[in-house]
Amino acid sequence: MYNLGIVKRNITRAHKAAVDKLSRYGVATIHEAMGRAGLMKPYMRPIYPGAKICGTAVTVLLQPGDNWMMHVAAEQLQPGDVAVAACTADNTDGFFGDLLATSFKARGARGLIIDGGCRDVSELEAMGFPVFSRAVSAKGTIKATLGSVNVPVVCAGASVNPGDVVIADADGVVVVPAAMAQQVADAAEARENLEGEKRAKLASGVLGLDMYNMRGPLEKAGLKYID
Amino acid sequence: MYNLGIVKRNITRAHKAAVDKLSRYGVATIHEAMGRAGLMKPYMRPIYPGAKICGTAVTVLLQPGDNWMMHVAAEQLQPGDVAVAACTADNTDGFFGDLLATSFKARGARGLIIDGGCRDVSELEAMGFPVFSRAVSAKGTIKATLGSVNVPVVCAGASVNPGDVVIADADGVVVVPAAMAQQVADAAEARENLEGEKRAKLASGVLGLDMYNMRGPLEKAGLKYID
Amino acid sequence: MYNLGIVKRNITRAHKAAVDKLSRYGVATIHEAMGRAGLMKPYMRPIYPGAKICGTAVTVLLQPGDNWMMHVAAEQLQPGDVAVAACTADNTDGFFGDLLATSFKARGARGLIIDGGCRDVSELEAMGFPVFSRAVSAKGTIKATLGSVNVPVVCAGASVNPGDVVIADADGVVVVPAAMAQQVADAAEARENLEGEKRAKLASGVLGLDMYNMRGPLEKAGLKYID
Amino acid sequence: MYNLGIVKRNITRAHKAAVDKLSRYGVATIHEAMGRAGLMKPYMRPIYPGAKICGTAVTVLLQPGDNWMMHVAAEQLQPGDVAVAACTADNTDGFFGDLLATSFKARGARGLIIDGGCRDVSELEAMGFPVFSRAVSAKGTIKATLGSVNVPVVCAGASVNPGDVVIADADGVVVVPAAMAQQVADAAEARENLEGEKRAKLASGVLGLDMYNMRGPLEKAGLKYID
Amino acid sequence: MYNLGIVKRNITRAHKAAVDKLSRYGVATIHEAMGRAGLMKPYMRPIYPGAKICGTAVTVLLQPGDNWMMHVAAEQLQPGDVAVAACTADNTDGFFGDLLATSFKARGARGLIIDGGCRDVSELEAMGFPVFSRAVSAKGTIKATLGSVNVPVVCAGASVNPGDVVIADADGVVVVPAAMAQQVADAAEARENLEGEKRAKLASGVLGLDMYNMRGPLEKAGLKYID
Amino acid sequence: MYNLGIVKRNITRAHKAAVDKLSRYGVATIHEAMGRAGLMKPYMRPIYPGAKICGTAVTVLLQPGDNWMMHVAAEQLQPGDVAVAACTADNTDGFFGDLLATSFKARGARGLIIDGGCRDVSELEAMGFPVFSRAVSAKGTIKATLGSVNVPVVCAGASVNPGDVVIADADGVVVVPAAMAQQVADAAEARENLEGEKRAKLASGVLGLDMYNMRGPLEKAGLKYID
Repeated sequence: MYNLGIVKRNITRAHKAAVDKLSRYGVATIHEAMGRAGLMKPYMRPIYPGAKICGTAVTVLLQPGDNWMMHVAAEQLQPGDVAVAACTADNTDGFFGDLLATSFKARGARGLIIDGGCRDVSELEAMGFPVFSRAVSAKGTIKATLGSVNVPVVCAGASVNPGDVVIADADGVVVVPAAMAQQVADAAEARENLEGEKRAKLASGVLGLDMYNMRGPLEKAGLKYID
Repeated sequence: MYNLGIVKRNITRAHKAAVDKLSRYGVATIHEAMGRAGLMKPYMRPIYPGAKICGTAVTVLLQPGDNWMMHVAAEQLQPGDVAVAACTADNTDGFFGDLLATSFKARGARGLIIDGGCRDVSELEAMGFPVFSRAVSAKGTIKATLGSVNVPVVCAGASVNPGDVVIADADGVVVVPAAMAQQVADAAEARENLEGEKRAKLASGVLGLDMYNMRGPLEKAGLKYID
Repeated sequence: MYNLGIVKRNITRAHKAAVDKLSRYGVATIHEAMGRAGLMKPYMRPIYPGAKICGTAVTVLLQPGDNWMMHVAAEQLQPGDVAVAACTADNTDGFFGDLLATSFKARGARGLIIDGGCRDVSELEAMGFPVFSRAVSAKGTIKATLGSVNVPVVCAGASVNPGDVVIADADGVVVVPAAMAQQVADAAEARENLEGEKRAKLASGVLGLDMYNMRGPLEKAGLKYID
Repeated sequence: MYNLGIVKRNITRAHKAAVDKLSRYGVATIHEAMGRAGLMKPYMRPIYPGAKICGTAVTVLLQPGDNWMMHVAAEQLQPGDVAVAACTADNTDGFFGDLLATSFKARGARGLIIDGGCRDVSELEAMGFPVFSRAVSAKGTIKATLGSVNVPVVCAGASVNPGDVVIADADGVVVVPAAMAQQVADAAEARENLEGEKRAKLASGVLGLDMYNMRGPLEKAGLKYID
Repeated sequence: MYNLGIVKRNITRAHKAAVDKLSRYGVATIHEAMGRAGLMKPYMRPIYPGAKICGTAVTVLLQPGDNWMMHVAAEQLQPGDVAVAACTADNTDGFFGDLLATSFKARGARGLIIDGGCRDVSELEAMGFPVFSRAVSAKGTIKATLGSVNVPVVCAGASVNPGDVVIADADGVVVVPAAMAQQVADAAEARENLEGEKRAKLASGVLGLDMYNMRGPLEKAGLKYID
Repeated sequence: MYNLGIVKRNITRAHKAAVDKLSRYGVATIHEAMGRAGLMKPYMRPIYPGAKICGTAVTVLLQPGDNWMMHVAAEQLQPGDVAVAACTADNTDGFFGDLLATSFKARGARGLIIDGGCRDVSELEAMGFPVFSRAVSAKGTIKATLGSVNVPVVCAGASVNPGDVVIADADGVVVVPAAMAQQVADAAEARENLEGEKRAKLASGVLGLDMYNMRGPLEKAGLKYID
């Protein structure tokens, strides 16, 4: 009745210019630029060091132990997309490996975010196909039950709509709604510019206490210095 | 009364040819080749990147916080063996470090699988002695209570009998019963051969949907495409 | 009433010679040398491979989702110090990133131990500022509630007093009370010397069973060898 | 920029008749009736045995360690509502206790679903104010940072929009979108009717294998009976 | 290839007299009587207070999110049996509810031990059908993939063979191999008799230190009393 | 070298009047009265519903899987004391059961707080001997390694010194330093008195927003009401 057994073919992807701009910033900066929203839970980790992803989401809703929908999703992937797979129950099975990665890569996909397990980790690293997952597991899955493709999903605690921008790096995974992509990219740029100045000051020995004018508020809050 | 305080000296190890053949395949392939059985829980991780093991199991049953049986096990290790240590309770203490590794290596052991903690991680990496463990912990253990060596154990959710083949790589740890080793190795080979063809097709842009003839079953299951 | 809203300025740091000597030994050795005390829980992991820290603790007590006290702590850091941050509740937010690291580094701090989250992991690795944390998370924090600096804290299960020596490496994090630093450093040295001999014997094929004279005690405990 | 610092006053609640009808069915039945969607993670548990809730959601987005928005939410509660509180980070602090419960109850609220901690458990049981939470914790919270009220939230893995129906019992917590409430209630009724017949058959000794005609499919799938 | 897709019809159950005798003792006593083996992990908890089970195991191997084999198992259940269900991956889905319980009860089963989720908890309590599980979850499962019935399984860390005796109470779940049932029951009886005397002594104020003659060994181990 | 193998016989217990007064207040109130310090982690739960404890701490430092020190501690218990047991590693073994409870009760102890496992739960409930623990487990322990009695310990994240007051109820476990006991008891009383007035106001329909004058600060923080 609800969101299962559906593949939506036409989705509105975030504008390429905004995605390109977002790809220049880190997850922490974008998360701040968006007002601290859209972050996935910190258990989502890269399967190999240095993995990074930025692209538009094709969402997948999986059933535990079943990766049938990954094959359905492959057909919906376009160059620049990132598959974002949620599961109807916590499950660490290896829903994804080098064969699917070969197919996804052939479609132009930039990577996978999966709230589940992934396998063939060495092969994926060798191929340069980045994955952020909840777990690594060699356990295979079946192809028996329908989920959906390109419906709204909750992945690792974050709402993801098809077409949203997903950015992943060593700090985690963040989701930017398609309609906010340009605005967030601009805010990230502004934030990054500001950070350069702050970094220089702090490096020179200026304290955050002074740079951010915190001494007054701390005193007012009742902070006591003792010897 | 039951499985404690016993060291079995004569165990039947899997045939060397089968072990050698299994060492050519990854954990995910072998797990599939065995009908998706024998996999340890995904919390078992290599203590350093690139660690790999394939060998015959000498099993160890430990008590929490006590590594006495590791020393007993050392004597039972033969070249090509892998120590597989289970514990009577979940425990992350550092049961194993560089001294034991030196001893195990001198006996010809190829590595350790331990459902517990390990320490001296840097030294073990420098020595090239691979360990897959539940945790890394500097906490030492005592030598006070009997466990057993070469009894059947449950290690990280998998049954292991002495002499079984244990294979570990970036995807996890899998156990192949000694009597099935050759059959599984052959099945792994067959599977790997098939995968090469599939990989080439998928790389050329053929979809899994078509390659695996999934469109009919998906339609029959009720999958709806919408725009 | 109790430990909140306080900054202690004058703390007694462990003697530099003892700290320097401790820096030559690993966490596992020091933990043993101290009688197996002072170890933090094994969930504390380095944010990048190869991270190591040894220095004197400036303690920080944080509130969940709030890093105000990190800025207060910066002013109390002296060359050779390590910030050790506890939190009043389990929390994985990213309390610390590259700006604070720049400031801490400018103060001469050697790293951070935090029972919470850390972000800007790639930047911190590039800067060479080591952090051991409970989690990595891009999620930012606010600056609204008082905690304390240089009060006794419980960090990841270990008691830490300001001025204590904190040592962290791939095996975990250990705390040495300032007053015991020299004694522990000497004991670590003695232990390390002994280990060299043992290592050589084990490498030559001598068994721990014989080297440690375990056969008698094992037999007395009831160990049975069967074939 | 995004969903923080907002209180939406006018929300569209599910129709009372549908809510009343849903209140007659259990969470498992409703979850099935909805096509197996909308279930919160199983870590959400009642704080006392026998707790049950059914009502329309007033959503709350909290910051870790901060319950300011609970007070803001109180004003938005109407008779028949259930407060559904999400948090921007995993946090077990006691955001809610008997004072807030007194206030919520005075507003006519039927209970609280909170992906965080709750305290004053005995008092809440004595008052008959049901709460389903991630944890029980005596730890208090501050009132310093804005979240939101009546924005869409992800609570314990489920998307909740203000006005949705939330049902909680010993089996967990399920969310029914307001627009689907009547349809789901009818489907739950139909399902319950069917279950009565099935139950009677099974109680009389008929096997599910026969009642559901599974023998053919099982044989086709390759099931082998051995002696 | 290995243990999947099999139903073993003829199993050797532990003798009724031994099962009956074991039913008189608690899990802790039996676990001790067996030499501290056979205990499931402590995450296995009763779904309602006061639940207790003692019977012979009919084992079930489930796939994640799939309870097909529970229906197959129903036919194999005989009066006095307990279904013991393991899963090929950690999964909390609700594999079992009141309909299956009705069927199992009609077959004479005494309860269920499941390393997975259970639902309809209130109904099961009302029926008096005891279940020990890893989780409670309303989430339903499918019937699509073969597992097995009456093969050896690892359930919550313990090896279980069909016909073994399984005992569950407030302290957890323990498995007694069928061939050891009488011996363990006798040892439990002996142990219980001894405990009565000890209890009386301790209640009268005698210390364990004296009753167990621990003062000497403690002194020898180096225990120091200080004032 | 450090805190192991020691039994301190003379400890300074909090004054009886202060303990008695503290026993009248709940854990949440006392935690607030102490400035939100001293709370154990929320994983510490009563082994039976309704369990409550208030008394002076006799601390125990255990080794994993070893309850020898519990017997040593028994001799140090005086009427009104509560045993507070920490462990050198996370461990869920059943360190405590009905025999030790009989002995502790005969000594006048009021209960046990243990960062480990407990068994004989039904018997302990029948005896009315309250325990708050990390886990319930039937698994027994050995008596082989020294820990300590009446040394400072970290138990479930809280520092406990011998003689401190420990209070436990449905909301968790809190520790009050002996020297602060009277002051905290008075503050708890004052807090409780205040809460009565607040409760009455809130019950009458007054909002916390008005009672706590939050509207101004919320507006200043930027809260926006929308329709």
